[in-house]
Amino acid sequence: MTERRYDPVTGEWRMFAGHRQDRTFLPADDFCPLCPTREGHPPTEIPLPAFDVVVFENRFPSLSRRPPAPAVVGSELYPVAPSAGANEVVVYSDDHHLSLGDMDVERIAKVVEVWADRYAKLGSRDEVAYVFIFENRGVAVGVTLHHPHGQMYAYPEIPPRAKRKLDVARAHHETHGTCVYCDVVAREQSDEVRVVAGNTSFLAFVPFAARFPYEVQIATRRHAPSLLELTDPERRSLAEILQTVVRAYDRLFGFPLPYVMSMHQAPTDDGEHQHVSHLHIEFTPLHRTAEKLKYLAGSELGAGAFINDVAPEDAAARLRAVQGT
Amino acid sequence: MTERRYDPVTGEWRMFAGHRQDRTFLPADDFCPLCPTREGHPPTEIPLPAFDVVVFENRFPSLSRRPPAPAVVGSELYPVAPSAGANEVVVYSDDHHLSLGDMDVERIAKVVEVWADRYAKLGSRDEVAYVFIFENRGVAVGVTLHHPHGQMYAYPEIPPRAKRKLDVARAHHETHGTCVYCDVVAREQSDEVRVVAGNTSFLAFVPFAARFPYEVQIATRRHAPSLLELTDPERRSLAEILQTVVRAYDRLFGFPLPYVMSMHQAPTDDGEHQHVSHLHIEFTPLHRTAEKLKYLAGSELGAGAFINDVAPEDAAARLRAVQGT
Repeated sequence: MTERRYDPVTGEWRMFAGHRQDRTFLPADDFCPLCPTREGHPPTEIPLPAFDVVVFENRFPSLSRRPPAPAVVGSELYPVAPSAGANEVVVYSDDHHLSLGDMDVERIAKVVEVWADRYAKLGSRDEVAYVFIFENRGVAVGVTLHHPHGQMYAYPEIPPRAKRKLDVARAHHETHGTCVYCDVVAREQSDEVRVVAGNTSFLAFVPFAARFPYEVQIATRRHAPSLLELTDPERRSLAEILQTVVRAYDRLFGFPLPYVMSMHQAPTDDGEHQHVSHLHIEFTPLHRTAEKLKYLAGSELGAGAFINDVAPEDAAARLRAVQGT
Repeated sequence: MTERRYDPVTGEWRMFAGHRQDRTFLPADDFCPLCPTREGHPPTEIPLPAFDVVVFENRFPSLSRRPPAPAVVGSELYPVAPSAGANEVVVYSDDHHLSLGDMDVERIAKVVEVWADRYAKLGSRDEVAYVFIFENRGVAVGVTLHHPHGQMYAYPEIPPRAKRKLDVARAHHETHGTCVYCDVVAREQSDEVRVVAGNTSFLAFVPFAARFPYEVQIATRRHAPSLLELTDPERRSLAEILQTVVRAYDRLFGFPLPYVMSMHQAPTDDGEHQHVSHLHIEFTPLHRTAEKLKYLAGSELGAGAFINDVAPEDAAARLRAVQGT
């Protein structure tokens, strides 16, 4: 069973992928499918003895180029659609232990190049409306493979949370004539108290109304709808600030902080969102202290109302302090 | 720091409550604050030697009747508001080990009475717009006290997810002239394959496009916006089906299945949502197998797009089978 079903009560599409129950689950290091293939051993997912950055299609996809026909018949109340789109895996390096924070800027810049390239390629497909780049890091967020890697999902429509953000940005633009994210970046620059790091082209800050205690967002200082609009020096700036933020996370509690990293860019199905799409990356770590996690429970899962125990200004101060700044 | 902040990028209010970092965390059974007070011991939260159902204000509230002034000054871009509202704890019984599935129907019916009573009382306050009844059960969903209990949050505005569901229901009503949830219940009754249990007044089913593998929703068969519209026999029917569903969960994998239970009723600030508010309860357990959890990661937290590994029809069949039906 691989199909998409529409929930008429929330107006959201959901993906169903039964075969994912069997996906590889935390294999021993010797059996890592994302490591290079060693001579005399069975091939991994990557039939090469060494590599820089590798992208391949997920073996257990929720969305794919030629999806099977849905198993159930849809109706007006319950629409059903094939799982068209793509799930790709982006392996950051051939080193099983080298996380984003351990990598040098040149290597991270290569990952940024790959993201930009795949965003363009996947986005150009007719059936793709939105390309979403993300990384799940750490067993606490459900990672099933330790080897540092990210993922790319190419959705056949703008997914629910991205759509809401675009709707809010459009309403803000109609009222104020500005991009809401440009206004937020300007405000964070001037307030300073929530800034975690900054360089020529990017600002990293804890959002004023953060969902998670140590949430950080990285945004372009100027309005840029996607990676494609960035110059080479800007892409290098992005690599630099990614390294700074992940290193701060790794120092915060003295262990690699589990997080979800989500990149938001312009939808790829039309040009009408360029003025309200502002490239930004959300880091949402789950820890609220070194020992305790923030759980999504009744208020968050049922009502959608987040409770945060840490003042964003305090979180930013701690993330600045561990950098020695 | 106790205040609410508005996120201009998503259009959502978020709650901040710094003192919650110090809340009681998984105390030993002997120190349970929700047990009756024993002679010769320091008082618990409940200064009684025995009780049926008890409600009291959360000692570590995110929302309260007389909230402090916010610590930061708001602006047009970043509105700030006091944390007005209420957080109440509903202790189901004085037995530390008696969960909802272990209780007899009479006792669950008492809990339903208390829910209805507090929904009316909290909803009548001027500063309250939405009363949300929920239960977090199990360490896997972040429970900090084992003694079976639920909670009630009285929010000063309709919280984000409830608002989206009401917006979708209103749009459906404008197009079709019907309550979308009434249409869903009728469809589930006739399709049968996703039904988990049913009685005179209520139907329990796995939603057609469930977010979680073993998600179950319980809904009134007729249109009723809240517990207040239910007759006494209907409230008893609700107690019966709650017992049936939780017992099925406890048998599914042979242990008390951790879940979030969320009850959705009409907002209490106006009468304009009555025709699109249909009383229903969502159970969202996190397990996808006996050993594995469904984690919310990039696609869910960043894009808002849920991936589910279990066909709703299969989940319903398993939840019927464990009842011996």
